[in-house]
Amino acid sequence: MEVAREAGVHPATASRALNPSARGEVSPRTVRRVVQAAERLGYVPNTLARGLRTSRSFVAALVIPDITNSLFPPIVRGAEQVLSAAGFTLVLTDTNNDPDSERGQIASMRAHGVDGFIIATARWQDSLLDELAADGTPTVLVNRRTAKSDLPFVGAEDQDGVRLCVDHLADLGHRNIVHLAGPSDTSTGRERSSAFRAAMRMRQLPLRSAILECASYSEAAGAAGAARLRASGRPFSAIVAANDLLALGAMEQLAGSGLQCPRDYSITGFNDLSFMSKLTPALTTVRVPLAEMGAHAARTLLGWIGSDGNPTSLRVLLPVELIIRGTTSPH
Amino acid sequence: MEVAREAGVHPATASRALNPSARGEVSPRTVRRVVQAAERLGYVPNTLARGLRTSRSFVAALVIPDITNSLFPPIVRGAEQVLSAAGFTLVLTDTNNDPDSERGQIASMRAHGVDGFIIATARWQDSLLDELAADGTPTVLVNRRTAKSDLPFVGAEDQDGVRLCVDHLADLGHRNIVHLAGPSDTSTGRERSSAFRAAMRMRQLPLRSAILECASYSEAAGAAGAARLRASGRPFSAIVAANDLLALGAMEQLAGSGLQCPRDYSITGFNDLSFMSKLTPALTTVRVPLAEMGAHAARTLLGWIGSDGNPTSLRVLLPVELIIRGTTSPH
Repeated sequence: MEVAREAGVHPATASRALNPSARGEVSPRTVRRVVQAAERLGYVPNTLARGLRTSRSFVAALVIPDITNSLFPPIVRGAEQVLSAAGFTLVLTDTNNDPDSERGQIASMRAHGVDGFIIATARWQDSLLDELAADGTPTVLVNRRTAKSDLPFVGAEDQDGVRLCVDHLADLGHRNIVHLAGPSDTSTGRERSSAFRAAMRMRQLPLRSAILECASYSEAAGAAGAARLRASGRPFSAIVAANDLLALGAMEQLAGSGLQCPRDYSITGFNDLSFMSKLTPALTTVRVPLAEMGAHAARTLLGWIGSDGNPTSLRVLLPVELIIRGTTSPH
Repeated sequence: MEVAREAGVHPATASRALNPSARGEVSPRTVRRVVQAAERLGYVPNTLARGLRTSRSFVAALVIPDITNSLFPPIVRGAEQVLSAAGFTLVLTDTNNDPDSERGQIASMRAHGVDGFIIATARWQDSLLDELAADGTPTVLVNRRTAKSDLPFVGAEDQDGVRLCVDHLADLGHRNIVHLAGPSDTSTGRERSSAFRAAMRMRQLPLRSAILECASYSEAAGAAGAARLRASGRPFSAIVAANDLLALGAMEQLAGSGLQCPRDYSITGFNDLSFMSKLTPALTTVRVPLAEMGAHAARTLLGWIGSDGNPTSLRVLLPVELIIRGTTSPH
């Protein structure tokens, strides 16, 4: 065919490169060459029409709570690269942490005929996701999951991460360690706090009044948590924060009442957001492979969409790593 | 109609709320209520089919070079909020700074029938954008523009920003000020460096060997620029970096050769990325209203799509502000 000649490839290769569901069998460089040749010749595949015929749109949606939280851009990038290599377009939706808006946006994207969802906004009890699961809409949860385990989930070894923090602090001689926990309506909040409890028990450290739940994963909530900790009078020499933003908020709050880190207390974060290594002191935290998490969620979604049936319910937990920097020091 | 009754609104309101091009006339809360009512009743507007009929898809694409560069998430969020309020879905594409990949992705999105593009990847000479302009494809440039001014552009008052930096440093007594310039194949690189030249002339400060062009807007390029500056032996007491990442890279490089900021030199950035206030010393920089920039680009695109014709070629420059923090001090 003309496009194959223009691109200098075998006709079968050109045909695979122009077919989004076969495109994965051809190298990205070749796909690009063929698509460019097709464009030069004015032959542009009418994917919209083909989507209607095959009931596939080759569009996948990624639903995140807040693009300006630097946890999410690497997840977006990882998912986008896998999806685009497979000929899928990624639609990104930012719900601004608003469940009503999320429901409206997901309804609108289903009306647009997207093939599936990657969801980073899961709450522990989440009727919207229960409905998607019951419907059989291809949906993969990333980072957070629901109480029901009926949708595939790609997350991190949160329990390992928290245990690494507690062990590191205990090894430095800390005994009065407290946990600024994430919200209990998120799986990450629940699992990190239960891992904290288990790790403290393992090291035979005191758990009484040691867990303070924060209302959200934000600097403001971390500051409020630290203020409550100070007001309670509970002694502490170290804090395990459920994520980096909570740690930053707590440090700012405690500095306001004269407590300097690591002179007066140690603290650990979770996620290793960009710039955490550039703070003074640089934040000791748990590095989560965020881009890989997004990529893995995308591969799982493509597997489901390609199989025309329900996937084996699966749960993938990626390994994490403790990055020791300046906010932790011997007691 | 049934949906209006279910939502408790006037039928005309329900009809506007379900029509993406009239949706802007109804409050977002009402739109949500009506869409939810429609969903409960199993009445979901078939936007895909309507897109084919009216030759609109109600999908707009935002093309960015790198979602993990924290310059872009606020722009994405600003654009997303305006587009979704108007019933449009935002497709996000990350080109990973690769022009070939950008060409392939834009071709694929045109094949998917998107209604228009917001482009944050413009190079100074950009044949792909020249083609989009010649085609009449609704396209709005954001943050960076091309040499030709035939597409609407939404950016910031870069010249003001650079002048504020030079004036601030000159007021602090600095005379040997150098500029780590952005790449000359970007409008921001060219305009900030010409603004630097103008501001230095205005203050009658020496310009010889005062401008060093960096190969990209990255920390690595900033470090390389600072290394060249040191190697040149040119005296300097202050640096105006063309963006925050260049400033961070330069500071790290100079710290490696024993130069501490602000003790040994002052430095300014550009953009005020998140966390710049949390560094030690906190970065003096130019705050750009990034979310507003994205929102304005989206409004401009919607205006073009709605008008069914070419827009008046326009150029919107949003005001900037100098945020004075710890990296600048008297000479």
